[in-house]
Amino acid sequence: MKGVILGINPAVTLIDITHEIPPGDIRAAAFALAASCSFFPKGTVHVVVVDPGVGSDRKAIVVKTKRFHFVAPDNGVLSWAVKREPIIAVHELRNPNFFLRSVSRTFHGRDVFAPAAAHLSRRLPAGKLGPAVADIIRLPWTEAVRVGDRRYQGQVIYVDRFGNGITNIESSSLESLEHARNLEVWRGTKRLCNVAEFYNAVPLGQPVAVFGSSGFLEIAVNGGNASAKLRLQVGSRIELRFR
Amino acid sequence: MKGVILGINPAVTLIDITHEIPPGDIRAAAFALAASCSFFPKGTVHVVVVDPGVGSDRKAIVVKTKRFHFVAPDNGVLSWAVKREPIIAVHELRNPNFFLRSVSRTFHGRDVFAPAAAHLSRRLPAGKLGPAVADIIRLPWTEAVRVGDRRYQGQVIYVDRFGNGITNIESSSLESLEHARNLEVWRGTKRLCNVAEFYNAVPLGQPVAVFGSSGFLEIAVNGGNASAKLRLQVGSRIELRFR
Amino acid sequence: MKGVILGINPAVTLIDITHEIPPGDIRAAAFALAASCSFFPKGTVHVVVVDPGVGSDRKAIVVKTKRFHFVAPDNGVLSWAVKREPIIAVHELRNPNFFLRSVSRTFHGRDVFAPAAAHLSRRLPAGKLGPAVADIIRLPWTEAVRVGDRRYQGQVIYVDRFGNGITNIESSSLESLEHARNLEVWRGTKRLCNVAEFYNAVPLGQPVAVFGSSGFLEIAVNGGNASAKLRLQVGSRIELRFR
Repeated sequence: MKGVILGINPAVTLIDITHEIPPGDIRAAAFALAASCSFFPKGTVHVVVVDPGVGSDRKAIVVKTKRFHFVAPDNGVLSWAVKREPIIAVHELRNPNFFLRSVSRTFHGRDVFAPAAAHLSRRLPAGKLGPAVADIIRLPWTEAVRVGDRRYQGQVIYVDRFGNGITNIESSSLESLEHARNLEVWRGTKRLCNVAEFYNAVPLGQPVAVFGSSGFLEIAVNGGNASAKLRLQVGSRIELRFR
Repeated sequence: MKGVILGINPAVTLIDITHEIPPGDIRAAAFALAASCSFFPKGTVHVVVVDPGVGSDRKAIVVKTKRFHFVAPDNGVLSWAVKREPIIAVHELRNPNFFLRSVSRTFHGRDVFAPAAAHLSRRLPAGKLGPAVADIIRLPWTEAVRVGDRRYQGQVIYVDRFGNGITNIESSSLESLEHARNLEVWRGTKRLCNVAEFYNAVPLGQPVAVFGSSGFLEIAVNGGNASAKLRLQVGSRIELRFR
Repeated sequence: MKGVILGINPAVTLIDITHEIPPGDIRAAAFALAASCSFFPKGTVHVVVVDPGVGSDRKAIVVKTKRFHFVAPDNGVLSWAVKREPIIAVHELRNPNFFLRSVSRTFHGRDVFAPAAAHLSRRLPAGKLGPAVADIIRLPWTEAVRVGDRRYQGQVIYVDRFGNGITNIESSSLESLEHARNLEVWRGTKRLCNVAEFYNAVPLGQPVAVFGSSGFLEIAVNGGNASAKLRLQVGSRIELRFR
């Protein structure tokens, strides 16, 4: 992909966000993209290659937002990025003038997405890449639920490379975080840990929950792997309670 | 290596092809290089550091082709790249003016290949790096064999990071691919799967064979890991049959 | 982090040294940094993000040396780099003008170190980032010990990605390396291997010790993984003996 891009735009700066998305895991890719895309400068072209449906009739698209372009398969992977970067236009990648000469059935990252992104980085208007389409496919987002005055029910939506379990409970959705010192995390009938301000607030090896760098509550083990130690995985239900 | 290169040519663009070659696996490196090198722009200097014989009497070489330079140990790792990019000249890296000041016995990537590549990227002629040599070491390539009218016998030559088993059966070597719908893959007396146009042509978890992005037949499991599920490894024999 | 840096300095060249430090392993990061930093060109800004104490009261610092800047948590990770690149000045990162607008409690790499490094790469004087501090935290370094005329006792200080066990016995500390052919490595009462000039000096699968690319004695298995085969880990004691 990088060779193809540099052949079209030798002056481009190429950045890898991650190589650690489990193969075909669209939800993990969608989360990683949403957590990082807004930190890139205006004009960045984000390219996503998590594409288990490559070669089938899933669309290849470019999404234009105020600050960015996103080139991706239309499989839901942009769902959460476009919550932060609202869509201005969507076009399907259909113009073969901007494909690699020969297009394989198994690697559109190289043959379709990379050349499209390279041309966008040279200021080709997105509309040249193909016809406008009405909308993109969106993954369901499970909102955390407030129960009464003192409890939020949520679930793990991503496990990062440190084994931290990131939940769908956002700090901005809590009424008053001044009381964060009085929050604890439960799993079923078992109290897991308190909410603290940073990992090191508990002894090594102990579980702790913090509102992390993506704005979501995450469950960690100080110096350890929460996913392994607490058997957390995507979908694990947890509850945040005021003491 | 990158620090050394940037010290010699601060304007160079550095691209990593892969960090996933199993340590010392020359065949895997040779395949990864052959599958990707032609997609890079003219003038690219490809550097290979899979070098289990470092410090012994294996040569360090630069191969000049029409579009590229390849800097590598002479251990066979360029065998298949030069099928696609024919050799114009080979020189041994012997001129210590283009080595790092102090050369270790265990990391010629940093001490010998990186400075040579950096100087080549500044248009140093390859001949300045050392004397011409007649040829490079080549790995044996096991050709797929046609048996009668309706069968090709081949083997797995590479397992990629998704667990797909890539075979030595090339689409260009088959007489008529219009009949691809009538092809199936066998392993010994067991039928593994049909050949399809893309992974998603079969249900999740099912095996499927496709002619992949490198032009070779590959055996996959849709959404899964074929190497693990079907116990495929480099050398596994398979057979392609017309139904 | 890279998005943040490029937003401040679009012309910067970004290099990843490694993504293979075990989470939170300050000693491994300190070794990897010390082994590589001196090979980068003058003016490089080295940024370290191995930061298990993020959010606590550990300092964030910039260390100025003759050739480089180092931006890192003050947790010992610079200990061995500054043996090779002596400190000229240390400043604490306290000036919020050079932080990201909103600073998380869990990812100072992105919110504090990245913007500081980007501004340094644009020639901001380190003193603008915060007040001078007297010194940095240093990890203890276990020196290899000479015992009598013919023995050095040391230990494994790092295991690299090939499984080689790198020890704290430095070639420069040995009296006469002309006798390297007469050196052997013991572990307790068991002779492990001889010292040779390169890995390939022994048959495949056999253990061998060499003075490696970082100047330290390392214990390897030719074509194999010494850490797994010989059960070497950080802290394993070994002894170098003249025969």
